[in-house]
Amino acid sequence: MASQILPLELIDRCIGSRIWVITKGEREFAGKLLGFDDFVNMVLEDVTEYINTEDGVKKVRLQQTLLNGNNICMLVPGSSGPEDA
Amino acid sequence: MASQILPLELIDRCIGSRIWVITKGEREFAGKLLGFDDFVNMVLEDVTEYINTEDGVKKVRLQQTLLNGNNICMLVPGSSGPEDA
Amino acid sequence: MASQILPLELIDRCIGSRIWVITKGEREFAGKLLGFDDFVNMVLEDVTEYINTEDGVKKVRLQQTLLNGNNICMLVPGSSGPEDA
Amino acid sequence: MASQILPLELIDRCIGSRIWVITKGEREFAGKLLGFDDFVNMVLEDVTEYINTEDGVKKVRLQQTLLNGNNICMLVPGSSGPEDA
Amino acid sequence: MASQILPLELIDRCIGSRIWVITKGEREFAGKLLGFDDFVNMVLEDVTEYINTEDGVKKVRLQQTLLNGNNICMLVPGSSGPEDA
Amino acid sequence: MASQILPLELIDRCIGSRIWVITKGEREFAGKLLGFDDFVNMVLEDVTEYINTEDGVKKVRLQQTLLNGNNICMLVPGSSGPEDA
Amino acid sequence: MASQILPLELIDRCIGSRIWVITKGEREFAGKLLGFDDFVNMVLEDVTEYINTEDGVKKVRLQQTLLNGNNICMLVPGSSGPEDA
Repeated sequence: MASQILPLELIDRCIGSRIWVITKGEREFAGKLLGFDDFVNMVLEDVTEYINTEDGVKKVRLQQTLLNGNNICMLVPGSSGPEDA
Repeated sequence: MASQILPLELIDRCIGSRIWVITKGEREFAGKLLGFDDFVNMVLEDVTEYINTEDGVKKVRLQQTLLNGNNICMLVPGSSGPEDA
Repeated sequence: MASQILPLELIDRCIGSRIWVITKGEREFAGKLLGFDDFVNMVLEDVTEYINTEDGVKKVRLQQTLLNGNNICMLVPGSSGPEDA
Repeated sequence: MASQILPLELIDRCIGSRIWVITKGEREFAGKLLGFDDFVNMVLEDVTEYINTEDGVKKVRLQQTLLNGNNICMLVPGSSGPEDA
Repeated sequence: MASQILPLELIDRCIGSRIWVITKGEREFAGKLLGFDDFVNMVLEDVTEYINTEDGVKKVRLQQTLLNGNNICMLVPGSSGPEDA
Repeated sequence: MASQILPLELIDRCIGSRIWVITKGEREFAGKLLGFDDFVNMVLEDVTEYINTEDGVKKVRLQQTLLNGNNICMLVPGSSGPEDA
Repeated sequence: MASQILPLELIDRCIGSRIWVITKGEREFAGKLLGFDDFVNMVLEDVTEYINTEDGVKKVRLQQTLLNGNNICMLVPGSSGPEDA
C-alpha cells in the first residue's frame, strides 16, 4: 500500500497553526487550531467567522470557539481563510 | 504531539460561566452553563434566546433550559452572545 | 471539576411538573411530564400543542402524548409554554 | 426517583386500541395498534390516512399498514385522529 | 402483554404476495415481495413505480428492484398500490 | 418461512452485469457492477450518468466510479438505465 | 462469488493519483489523493474546487484539503474533474 497521509494525521499536524473550516451551512471560519477529537469537533482561537448573507459576506471576530464536527464539509490546513485562496 | 485543548475540556472549563450557543436552526442562546453530557446536550440558566425572524431578531428570556446537542453548530465559551461579538 | 447539573438529571427532576418542549418542526408542546427514556422520548399529559401556521398559532388540546426525542430542539422545565415566556 | 410512565410502556398499553400517529411529512394516521418494535416501527389495522394537500385534507382507507418509526414525530394513544382532537 | 404482530413478522408473512411501498421522496412502488433484510431493504418483482410529477402521476414498469429501507415511509402488505386504495 | 431473495444476494448476483442506480439527488447511473460492500457503496464501470436539470436530462460518460451507498434510493439489476425502462 | 473490486480497494489503488470527488452540496473537487480513512474522509493535494453558482462554475485553487466523507456522493478515480468528463 502506497504511503499515505491519514485525515486525523493531517489535522494533528495543524495544531497551533492556522486552518480554514467550511461548514454545511452558510458559515466559514479561519483561526488557530487548539485541539480536536475523533468526531473532528474542533477548538479554534483568534477566529474570523465569514457568514454568507444576501448582502454579501459578513465578518465576525470571535475568541475561543468550538465547532461541531458533524457540520463540517471541508478543512484547509495552513490557510487563513477565503481571502487567502 | 503538540499540547492541545480537547473540545469537551473547553466546555468543562466553562461550567458556571457564560456561553453563547448557535444552533442549526434560526435560534441562538446566551446563558450560564450548568452542565453537559457526552452528546454535548447542555443545561443553561439565566438564558436569553435570540430568534432570527423576517422582522429582525426576537429576544426571549428563559429560566433553566436544556439544548439538544445534536442541533448545535458552534459554541463560544465566555461570550454573552451576539451583542458581545 | 465544578459541580454540574447533567441533562438527564434536569429532566428527571421535572417528572410530575410542567415542561415546555420545542421541536425541530413548527410544533411546540406544554404539558405535565409523566416519563422519558435515554433517547429523551417523552410522555406528557394534559397537553397543549402550539402549531405555527401562516394564519398564526393554532392551539390543540391533547391527552397523553408521546414525543420522539429525535425531533426535540430544546426543553424548558417548569414552564407552561410560550405564553409563559 | 418519582414513579414514571416510560415511552415504550405507554405504547405497549395501547396494543389493541386506537392510536393517532403524526409523521414528519404531511401524513397522519389513525388506526388500531397491532404491534411495534424497539425502533417504534408500528403495525396498524383499520387505518385512516390523513394527507395534508394544498386542496385540504385527503383521507385514504387502508388495511394493515406498517409505519417506519424513524419518520414518526408524535403519538396520541387512545385517540381516533385529528377529528377527535 | 397483549398478543401483537411485530413489524418484521408482518413483512415476512407478505413474501410472495403483493405489497405497496411509499417512500420519503415522490415515489411509490407496487410489486411482489421476494425478500427483505433487517434494515427493511426490500427486493420486489413485477413492479409498477408511481412518480408524482407536476404533470400528474407517471407510471414505470420495472423488473426485479431493490429499495433502500432507509428511504421507506410506510408499507401496505397485500395491496396492489395507490389504484387499489 | 417462504424462500426469499435477500437484498445483498440480489446485488451479488449482478456482479459483472449491468445495473441501474437511482440516488436521492437528481442523478441516476447505469453501468457494469464491479463490486460493493455491506453499506451498498458500489463500484461501477463503463458508466452513463443521467443528471435531471431544468433543461432536460444531461448525460455524462464516466470510467470507473464509486457511489456512496448512503445516497442510493433504488437499484434495478440487469437494467441499462432509464432509456431501458 | 464472481471476483469483484471492493469500494475501499478502488480508493486505495488511487493513492498518489488524480481523483474527482462530487459532494452532496454544490461543490466538486479534483486533486491528487494523499490518503483516506474508513469513513472515506479524504486528504487531497493540488486541488481545484468547482462551486456551482447562479453565475456559472467558480474555480478555486487549494493546497492540502480534507473532505468529510459523510458529504461525498461519488468518486471518479483517475479523473481530473468535470472538464475531463
